[in-house]
Amino acid sequence: MKATVERATLLKCLGHVQSVVERRNTIPILSNVLIEAEEGGLKLTATDLDLQVVDSIAAQVETGGAVTVSAHTLFDIVRKLPDGSQVALDAAEEKMQIRAGRARFNLATLPRDDFPMIAESDLPTSFNLPGETLAEIIDKTRFAISTEETRYYLNGIFMHVSDGKFYAVATDGHRLARVTLDPPEGAAEMPDVIVPRKCVSELRKLLDEADGDVEIGLSDSKVRFRVGTAVLTSKLIDGTFPDYSRVIPTGNDRLLKIDPKTLSQGVDRVSAIAAEKTKAVKVTLEQDKVVLSVTSPETGTAKEEVEADYKSEGFDVGFNAKYLMDILSEVEGDTIDVHLADAAAPTLIRESDDSNALYVLMPMRV
Amino acid sequence: MKATVERATLLKCLGHVQSVVERRNTIPILSNVLIEAEEGGLKLTATDLDLQVVDSIAAQVETGGAVTVSAHTLFDIVRKLPDGSQVALDAAEEKMQIRAGRARFNLATLPRDDFPMIAESDLPTSFNLPGETLAEIIDKTRFAISTEETRYYLNGIFMHVSDGKFYAVATDGHRLARVTLDPPEGAAEMPDVIVPRKCVSELRKLLDEADGDVEIGLSDSKVRFRVGTAVLTSKLIDGTFPDYSRVIPTGNDRLLKIDPKTLSQGVDRVSAIAAEKTKAVKVTLEQDKVVLSVTSPETGTAKEEVEADYKSEGFDVGFNAKYLMDILSEVEGDTIDVHLADAAAPTLIRESDDSNALYVLMPMRV
Repeated sequence: MKATVERATLLKCLGHVQSVVERRNTIPILSNVLIEAEEGGLKLTATDLDLQVVDSIAAQVETGGAVTVSAHTLFDIVRKLPDGSQVALDAAEEKMQIRAGRARFNLATLPRDDFPMIAESDLPTSFNLPGETLAEIIDKTRFAISTEETRYYLNGIFMHVSDGKFYAVATDGHRLARVTLDPPEGAAEMPDVIVPRKCVSELRKLLDEADGDVEIGLSDSKVRFRVGTAVLTSKLIDGTFPDYSRVIPTGNDRLLKIDPKTLSQGVDRVSAIAAEKTKAVKVTLEQDKVVLSVTSPETGTAKEEVEADYKSEGFDVGFNAKYLMDILSEVEGDTIDVHLADAAAPTLIRESDDSNALYVLMPMRV
Repeated sequence: MKATVERATLLKCLGHVQSVVERRNTIPILSNVLIEAEEGGLKLTATDLDLQVVDSIAAQVETGGAVTVSAHTLFDIVRKLPDGSQVALDAAEEKMQIRAGRARFNLATLPRDDFPMIAESDLPTSFNLPGETLAEIIDKTRFAISTEETRYYLNGIFMHVSDGKFYAVATDGHRLARVTLDPPEGAAEMPDVIVPRKCVSELRKLLDEADGDVEIGLSDSKVRFRVGTAVLTSKLIDGTFPDYSRVIPTGNDRLLKIDPKTLSQGVDRVSAIAAEKTKAVKVTLEQDKVVLSVTSPETGTAKEEVEADYKSEGFDVGFNAKYLMDILSEVEGDTIDVHLADAAAPTLIRESDDSNALYVLMPMRV
């Protein structure tokens, strides 16, 4: 293999693939990136056995071939090369030489045949989504993905079509976030899938750099996203997402309309009084206002009034301050609708009745 | 105590004092900041028993008095208050109330009489240094301060006057940094002092925000810096700094002149090949160039040539890559003088023969 590539192009491509590679690997080749040179370009592949990213870039290829080298070391080297330099790659005899300017590196290689690829398989469902829409789905749901490893079936975003709608849902049992879309063409018969957290996070990074549509391919065990020049293939979570629809309240008849920014800033302020991680903020609903308060046995008390539109009977309800702020940071606009029932029942939050995103938050005892 | 103060003014003042307060304290009052209100202003004091910062700000004081409250909580609250707000402080009955806009906080207090102050004592030596000069002294030496607690006498910057010169020195046994000045008026008879690392770092932060001269007071156990409105008082390290002058080589007769930026970038690049913390870079001196190289048994090899002015006999010498880059990042100008003897002897680095800063670096075996 012998090729020359612009440093900026190579750096961007390595940026797309290297973060898939775990820092510590017991299987040495999983630390490596596969570089394949064909006429006109290079193809770089990284994998953690569950998730694989392939990205292609233009390069002057003198001799084709393939080699694998340490992904993080290569990334670090290319990052430190002078801006604007041309990088010559030259692989032979268990070494890859990298030359740029007056610097040269010889990296140890491992055979390309040992590099594990996620098997290409039939992806019967295929549809397109605008990159922007996919980014919005991720942003509005991923904060609610569970991090509890024992509840592995909650460690991702659940996507499914039901009753003629496409839903993306995440929950950790304390809060739930759901985005609803009209199903894109070709998605009507898609299987229910749970896209793992790491795939979601790598996908989100790719979406920042690409415009246009994302091509999505699905089977019941795999998903593939084609974003610009990059192709992300991931195993799906092999589990059953709980029937979350029972959790979404429909009969909450106390409606609070409030400015999400003002509410969020107030919650942030009053929770400054408590140093603990799980800060419960008490929300006291009164006629056309809410009073936020936090009491810490050690530090003291905090209280703030926020104007609101509220006509029902007053009562107190407690929420985890961080969970409430997570939701408020994702809603747009000047008011949100908070549908409450009582101090123990799940609360429904949405921008308005016809907004595509919906949030459910479980109260805390205060 | 009853006073009103602008949020921005209070925030800046708390910024000056709160970082002195340790996050974890076994003595509760050490978590607190002392607030004293007198006509026209507030005085805030924080301490860790070794280091004390006092800062004064203008405020409308209705009733004088003094109180102590949690420094980090107060800082967090004031940080989160809306920009431009007026903050009302009102202390009574073991509570301090804070009001701003529609938010109010009640913080638990501890009695001001329990707050430990570093005893005012006679500081027989007193002199002034321009803030800029003091900042330069710190920047050019503090990276070499030892972090080994057992060598507590190296955990600070050693300042002393000898043979009509003022010296500031730091070393960890592997490298040494020294800045030389003409002694400021009043410093000629100063005692030898070791200013502890934490005091250096708090002082450096204050220097970023104040112009003009810094007033320095010294005894053989304490130092006081008056920077703008802030007064920093610190115990000195009670130990003997080693006789470092023996370490500074005087007979190194091989002179390398080289661009520090190019050298630093080259060292940074070749050391990308080695993942270990202590990266040794081999410097091969040849006629009018140096070759930097790093070999990692696992990853491979890296090599880079850097143009230089070197006329003596060629040889190899190894340096810790990070230590070398630390020094190179502090020197200015287009060339530095590197005075070498052999692969085992301390190496002297300075901008030129008449520059006020000097660095000594011990080689590593490569």
